Parts: sequence; C-alpha cells; structure tokens
Amino acid sequence: MPKPSLHVALIHWPVLDRAKNIVCTNVTNFDIHDIARASRTYGVEKYFIVNKMQEQLSFVSRVLDHWRLGVGSEYNNKRKTALGMVHLQPTLEDVIKTFPQKPLVVATSARELGIPRITFKDLREKLDSEGSESILLVFGTGFGLGEQVLAQADMLLEPLRGASKDDYRHLSVRSAVSIVLDRLLGRW
Amino acid sequence: MPKPSLHVALIHWPVLDRAKNIVCTNVTNFDIHDIARASRTYGVEKYFIVNKMQEQLSFVSRVLDHWRLGVGSEYNNKRKTALGMVHLQPTLEDVIKTFPQKPLVVATSARELGIPRITFKDLREKLDSEGSESILLVFGTGFGLGEQVLAQADMLLEPLRGASKDDYRHLSVRSAVSIVLDRLLGRW
Repeated sequence: MPKPSLHVALIHWPVLDRAKNIVCTNVTNFDIHDIARASRTYGVEKYFIVNKMQEQLSFVSRVLDHWRLGVGSEYNNKRKTALGMVHLQPTLEDVIKTFPQKPLVVATSARELGIPRITFKDLREKLDSEGSESILLVFGTGFGLGEQVLAQADMLLEPLRGASKDDYRHLSVRSAVSIVLDRLLGRW
Repeated sequence: MPKPSLHVALIHWPVLDRAKNIVCTNVTNFDIHDIARASRTYGVEKYFIVNKMQEQLSFVSRVLDHWRLGVGSEYNNKRKTALGMVHLQPTLEDVIKTFPQKPLVVATSARELGIPRITFKDLREKLDSEGSESILLVFGTGFGLGEQVLAQADMLLEPLRGASKDDYRHLSVRSAVSIVLDRLLGRW
C-alpha cells in the first residue's frame, strides 16, 4: 500500500511584512535552490513556488530553464535533478487545484489562530502510515502567512522551537523548511 | 555543572571544487545570515566564518557592521542579535587558537577517511552531559572540506542522509547546518 505523498509550497503572496501589512515578496535565488535541494533530498514530490507577480514567475522560470535545459544542466546535473520537481503557481488556490483530490493543507505559523495544531510526531506518523492522501506543507516568506492563506489550512504544524536560552527563533524560511522535512522524514 | 559549549565554523578555504581541486570559495550573504540565525536559534556560542582572502573578510565585515551598528541595527533588531556571535578568521588553525583549551573538532564529510565517526545520537548525548569542553563543528562550502582541514578533525560526524528513493543528498550547506543543529539540540 502506498504512503501519503508530501508536497511543499512557498508562499510569496499574501504574506505579512514587519508592520503586518499584506505584501508580495520577491523570490530569491536561494529560495529556489536550497528548498528544491532539501525537498529532493527528503523525497518531497513537488515544490511549488507561489507568487502572483508575473515578472517574478518569469524570473524563476528563466532560472529553472538555465538549470534544467541550458548551460546549467550540463554544468551541474545534481541541480537539474533537484529542480525537476519545482512548479510555479500564482496562488495557493491554484496549487490546490493541481491535485486530483484536495490535499491535506498543513500551514506553518507561530500565531494562535483557532486552527487545530498537529505535532511533528503525529504528522511524521501520518506520513509513515498507509494512505493515498496528499499532504501539502505551506510555508510563508516575509513575516508570516496572510490570513487568506491560513483560512485554507486544515491544520497548523507545531511551531519550531530551537534551544537558545532566550527562546530566540528567527530562522530563515530555508532553514525552517530543511528542519521540518528532517523532523518529518529524516532517519538517524 | 556546565554543559559543553557548541561552536560552528564555515570553511571557505581549503575546500574542494567539482574537479577536486583545492579552492577558496566566496562568502555569500545567505551563508552569513541563514547560518547566524540558525546558530542563534539553537544556542550556538560562536559562528566563525573562515576565509583566507582579506577582501572576503572585509566584505563580511561591512555586512556585519551594517546590521550590528548601522542602519540595519535599527531596522531589524533580530538580525543584530543573531549577528552578534559571528566571528571572522582566516584559517581553521586561527579559529582553534581563539579557544583557551583545544576544542573537540568535529568535521562533516561524507568521505571515508579513517577518522573516527560519531553518530548524531552520541554527539547529542555529549552536548547534554556535564562538561566544560568546547565542541567545534566544522562545515565546508564548495564540494567538501580539503584534507588540510580534515587532518585537524578529532572526529567526523555521521553523514546526513535524507529520505529519497535514490538516496539523493545534495543539500546546501545552509540546510545541512540547520538540520545538524536541530538533530543535536532540537527538542520536539
């Protein structure tokens, strides 16, 4: 029997800025590569980069073409392999529509919003159990996911805590995705 | 009783390139920020950026000044806090000399080199036991640490495996540092 498939979405709009305004952030080159490589390493099926600005999607598309088809594909074959699973969509709604059946949407947010929480342990067990369900992990850029995105979440993942004395936890989204994937799928 | 203190060094020279030549890589802005933020989140004491090129250290120094003292320190206080523990040194030898007593040097390399391996579990236990020892985790950029660095390692950390069907494991160093710190110090 198959296990649930895991997918990652990185949201650039609608996300919060420092002053809690809704903004659209830019895609960085490191968001493309680091998260694709981590996703590929942990067997994530698809990595969706979500940005409603057409120029932004065109920029990512050019980067992907370079590594998948252009000079980069011969220069670095491992990057080509990782970037094969990157997909571009303007909104989370569009991402969800690409699935034959609605996936379980698990968002990441440190805020308490009345959405049920799931622990790393429980989600790890779910991923290791029989089932044909798709699970979509949703991460935000900027200062966190906007409410319009959170309203589509079935569950919120347990917040990521580190181990500093003053409970500092201001990880880059690239670090957060890597650590979450390792907690859900890593074996050591 | 105190527990061992943990430190991270990111080596830009001597490291290997794709063809296994010894090279000096450039420091990227994301190596500074992502790894400082992850280190800060997990209570790492010092994060050493190691590069023998003076221009490279000057570049990093300017970035650090911007966030620690300049406009950036007022703009983003959390970055200031994270970057306070970043230190610059030309070589690993220089890093080791900054410790009052020689730290236990634990390098990361997937190659087998006859240096004793330590598992994540054992190093985690060591960090959680009483002791005044300092532990220095050494990560490489490029395509891995050069032999001159590995010759100074007391131990090699267990290689990081993911969970892909074809055992793809080509993480960015930023992802690798984040995952290693979580395995050694994360609580969930």
